[in-house]
Amino acid sequence: MTVKFALLGAGRIGRVHAKAVAGDADARLVAVADAVPEAAQAIADAYSCTVRTIAEIEAAADIDAVVVCTPTNTHADLIERFAHAGKAVFCEKPIDLDLARVKGCLDVVEKAGAVLMVGFNRRFDPHFAAVRAAIDEGRIGPVEMVQITSRDPGPPPISYIKTSGGIFRDMTIHDFDMARFLLGEEPDTVFATASVLVDPAIGAAGDHDSVSVVLTTASGKQCSISNSRRATYGYDQRIEVLGAKGAISAENQRPVSIEIANAEGFTRPPLHDFFMTRYTQAYAAEIAAFVAAVSAGAPASPSGADGLKALALADAALRSVKEARAVEISEVLG
Amino acid sequence: MTVKFALLGAGRIGRVHAKAVAGDADARLVAVADAVPEAAQAIADAYSCTVRTIAEIEAAADIDAVVVCTPTNTHADLIERFAHAGKAVFCEKPIDLDLARVKGCLDVVEKAGAVLMVGFNRRFDPHFAAVRAAIDEGRIGPVEMVQITSRDPGPPPISYIKTSGGIFRDMTIHDFDMARFLLGEEPDTVFATASVLVDPAIGAAGDHDSVSVVLTTASGKQCSISNSRRATYGYDQRIEVLGAKGAISAENQRPVSIEIANAEGFTRPPLHDFFMTRYTQAYAAEIAAFVAAVSAGAPASPSGADGLKALALADAALRSVKEARAVEISEVLG
Amino acid sequence: MTVKFALLGAGRIGRVHAKAVAGDADARLVAVADAVPEAAQAIADAYSCTVRTIAEIEAAADIDAVVVCTPTNTHADLIERFAHAGKAVFCEKPIDLDLARVKGCLDVVEKAGAVLMVGFNRRFDPHFAAVRAAIDEGRIGPVEMVQITSRDPGPPPISYIKTSGGIFRDMTIHDFDMARFLLGEEPDTVFATASVLVDPAIGAAGDHDSVSVVLTTASGKQCSISNSRRATYGYDQRIEVLGAKGAISAENQRPVSIEIANAEGFTRPPLHDFFMTRYTQAYAAEIAAFVAAVSAGAPASPSGADGLKALALADAALRSVKEARAVEISEVLG
Amino acid sequence: MTVKFALLGAGRIGRVHAKAVAGDADARLVAVADAVPEAAQAIADAYSCTVRTIAEIEAAADIDAVVVCTPTNTHADLIERFAHAGKAVFCEKPIDLDLARVKGCLDVVEKAGAVLMVGFNRRFDPHFAAVRAAIDEGRIGPVEMVQITSRDPGPPPISYIKTSGGIFRDMTIHDFDMARFLLGEEPDTVFATASVLVDPAIGAAGDHDSVSVVLTTASGKQCSISNSRRATYGYDQRIEVLGAKGAISAENQRPVSIEIANAEGFTRPPLHDFFMTRYTQAYAAEIAAFVAAVSAGAPASPSGADGLKALALADAALRSVKEARAVEISEVLG
Repeated sequence: MTVKFALLGAGRIGRVHAKAVAGDADARLVAVADAVPEAAQAIADAYSCTVRTIAEIEAAADIDAVVVCTPTNTHADLIERFAHAGKAVFCEKPIDLDLARVKGCLDVVEKAGAVLMVGFNRRFDPHFAAVRAAIDEGRIGPVEMVQITSRDPGPPPISYIKTSGGIFRDMTIHDFDMARFLLGEEPDTVFATASVLVDPAIGAAGDHDSVSVVLTTASGKQCSISNSRRATYGYDQRIEVLGAKGAISAENQRPVSIEIANAEGFTRPPLHDFFMTRYTQAYAAEIAAFVAAVSAGAPASPSGADGLKALALADAALRSVKEARAVEISEVLG
Repeated sequence: MTVKFALLGAGRIGRVHAKAVAGDADARLVAVADAVPEAAQAIADAYSCTVRTIAEIEAAADIDAVVVCTPTNTHADLIERFAHAGKAVFCEKPIDLDLARVKGCLDVVEKAGAVLMVGFNRRFDPHFAAVRAAIDEGRIGPVEMVQITSRDPGPPPISYIKTSGGIFRDMTIHDFDMARFLLGEEPDTVFATASVLVDPAIGAAGDHDSVSVVLTTASGKQCSISNSRRATYGYDQRIEVLGAKGAISAENQRPVSIEIANAEGFTRPPLHDFFMTRYTQAYAAEIAAFVAAVSAGAPASPSGADGLKALALADAALRSVKEARAVEISEVLG
Repeated sequence: MTVKFALLGAGRIGRVHAKAVAGDADARLVAVADAVPEAAQAIADAYSCTVRTIAEIEAAADIDAVVVCTPTNTHADLIERFAHAGKAVFCEKPIDLDLARVKGCLDVVEKAGAVLMVGFNRRFDPHFAAVRAAIDEGRIGPVEMVQITSRDPGPPPISYIKTSGGIFRDMTIHDFDMARFLLGEEPDTVFATASVLVDPAIGAAGDHDSVSVVLTTASGKQCSISNSRRATYGYDQRIEVLGAKGAISAENQRPVSIEIANAEGFTRPPLHDFFMTRYTQAYAAEIAAFVAAVSAGAPASPSGADGLKALALADAALRSVKEARAVEISEVLG
Repeated sequence: MTVKFALLGAGRIGRVHAKAVAGDADARLVAVADAVPEAAQAIADAYSCTVRTIAEIEAAADIDAVVVCTPTNTHADLIERFAHAGKAVFCEKPIDLDLARVKGCLDVVEKAGAVLMVGFNRRFDPHFAAVRAAIDEGRIGPVEMVQITSRDPGPPPISYIKTSGGIFRDMTIHDFDMARFLLGEEPDTVFATASVLVDPAIGAAGDHDSVSVVLTTASGKQCSISNSRRATYGYDQRIEVLGAKGAISAENQRPVSIEIANAEGFTRPPLHDFFMTRYTQAYAAEIAAFVAAVSAGAPASPSGADGLKALALADAALRSVKEARAVEISEVLG
């Protein structure tokens, strides 16, 4: 079966998904919609699909699934609308910045019986996926401690910061999902500390740029997360897992892996400077997983509930920063 | 300009190039020909192109360029035929196993004024290309010594060995090209030693499976090449260049870069087990370079002359093994 | 000047320091005392020094300095006694498990004007010292975030656990000192979480074996510490420092750095399995620094105050675990 | 048993061995001789031994063994003299630059029944020794190909070059010994090429500074050696061994193993800049092996015959350069 797609939102991340859909042997990009006609047309030209309105896509018989890449504040509405329309929905994270709104949206999706997948792309990185596979194979025994280092090459524009929901909901949320993916047990408390070390303007906007988080589970497993909005050496993305029988790590990926040696030492070039080049393979594998779920009529993973739980961890982290204490997830999830 | 392609030969390497052409924004795969109809049809189905005969492609007005992936003994004839037909020709290495035949073919190409590019894919590997770029930027000063380690995961079938022209013309030829690419000066003598350590059947077929080569240039630059038909840990492809001011190396590429630590130590998974997965990026970049040359009406590189010189080094190496002495290239090139 | 030493305590760590003193060109081991006569005699035989009582050493004119390697509960008394006797004192950490007792001891040392150095050996590891030197040279700009991973190959005997003061005062205390060494600013709050994942008997003894800590400073610098009493792959000791202009890391040290590649992958042997082999160079450099301070009549570093502050962090961490909140150092230091 | 030593020659390498003897629990440095009184006295002062003449050492009843670190042209005479005197002899390589003289010397040693060990220190490097041990354990199956990269940080003074016997006898000889150590089968042919790329003055002195060598054994095993007198990044010492079942490598050792990451990339400091710091552990282990052999009255390894064979390979290499052909060892060994 070939899954026929419409792309909602033709911006930066929309282009990434358009390419992934176009390159998937079991998928076809049929239509694209965007508030900016030129953006939609560019996708239409590149992948020989048609520009349509949201309403046309909603009503289209030749569309099986939509990829939601519109601004965050439209996600929940679009998910509900296309769930009602009987389309499978792949939505970029987050579903919404408000936990209650996310819960409401997931109720609608559940009642509609729709397939919903949330775009936590890192689960599909071949290296991180291999870490998880090795855990599942029992290579390191039961997981005990997880360490996630996740740093951006540089901060986004302040305008972006202001609508991002803050570093926990925008950036750390990926690490919260990765923590859940690797711990094999739901974290039930969060401690977080946050400060402004990179750019005072980020602080002025009410956000932080440097974050340390500790998650714990009921059985005592622990996960540390270290985030910064600035790593001059590139997009720093590493995970380590300690188990009873050993440990696994996934190191940074490099666009060019040469080394130059001279009197100053041995130098390798910087890391990828952008998440799109770092996670090229992950984006393709993510769409492939969604296509497989849609084709099989099976639930997609990561699910809407995964999106909800990661957001709850972000909310708990923010409260932890304010109150300088460990916050239980139940306090925010109710 | 979009360069319109026909693929001649729909076997293993043909499929690689079909994918590269299809994925290139400036190229389009229009037709495919193969003696085995099913093979051609599979390509036609996958990339929405038509199955045609060689003659039809030769006469076609909608074909700008051909990719020659047929058996080696047909290469020179096809190159000449399509050069006459006014098509640009990308030909898998080698042009022919016979040096005189190659020379004759290149004369025809030159008279026809055709564009000819020879498939030394490794020049387009981003890591090896970065080594060359760093040399060109003067990062290590003048090149003095090059070391190339190139080992296959396992030997090909004996049937392949028998028609391969021998390890120097089939396998080391890539390293000869890489040596020329990196030395920045033409090698003028070759010493080679060869033995059968992997499989006696290879020896029975008149070939070797383990090879050490030393190339030297007029100014005293040296290049060592080490080949084996068997590396249990995967496709081993490394280069190192020593210059007056420093050194550069390009390490092996790994499909999955995780590390598992336990009481036995720290273990990373094996290397790629196949040249196609190892050189995926190189094959795409290679076609892109060919497309760029064809679009610009410019000479393509690596050229037919590059193919000729690498083959001459292979012939000299074989003579060196037989005579246990350093052989000058002029002895074989005449 | 040659500094003449007496060794107090001829157990495991005593032997390490005896060797360091004997191998130092500016030091001489003159005497040794131990409650177990055989232990003292073994040191005396190996290094041609004399066995004496504590009282004899206290009164000896031919002793400039003592190395205190006796059980922890004797440290403070011995420090005071030898400070009064006019000897320079090198004392293994901790000075005492009780913060008030440490303060009292340091008052005595200060009044006596004695030289006191506390045995935080890791500051003298050449790799960690090079990290600090690079920070001091401005190689990464102002420090922002520190990550310390510190895991033992396996847990000590339960009998040891019971008198150790708990994991924070026994094990993490080294990491607290390293955090202070690297942050360049005093941590003022501690959050810690701790659990029993390695051995229930450790929990039964009232201690933990798996710990995550986050330290913060007034300016918002952060330090994460990850401890476990079990790492099957060896003694895991790594630090990373992120600064405004870059990052520095010191990787694990390996007794044998070979790699074996086969069909299962690329395997390097495990790490050192013991702190003494891992920190051989550090122990020698530590004694050399003490000798240099004594010779120069200068203050030694790390000082008694460094010992006090690391202990305060440990106490604060323990309180943080109990109260599930960030604890300010001022709460425990008064 | 404690082996009592005299040191003959108190220069640079003599000091290295004096320290190794002094630090060995089963050895004692009793006497030292040197044509330069100050040099001898410095050793005597540092290690509390006596300055004596060669003749006094020869006649001394309290000397079991000598370490010969005098100029090369005195080695063979001293070996013979002390073999006659009933002393065990450890001699720095080479025994002599003349193959016939070496043979004569070894005959004398054999008739005297003396213990003779030749200073090929690299066999005792823990990393290289671990490579050999892994081969012996069958970890990679039968050895097929060996690659040795061995480069000095910079060329020695021209005055040294002039008396060194040339790069093959002075520098490559260590690699010839390592090749024999690792191949597990005697090389029977040598091909070598050599040029002057580092310093024309080396060429003017009749020597080379850049060398590539290929050794082969009767069964077809191959060893490649790459030498340069200049590596700006430090003392480059690596080995790789390919076997039927896998491969082993030993990477370079680093005095400080930190890595600094910034916008220019990831930089590790240069390698050791001197053979003495690189091979500190090897020199100690080498003397320990000699002491063990002397104590046990057993033959020492590497033996005089090992010294002879490495020199023969050097002579064959030189002839190979001159005649541009593979030279059989039997041609030089007779």
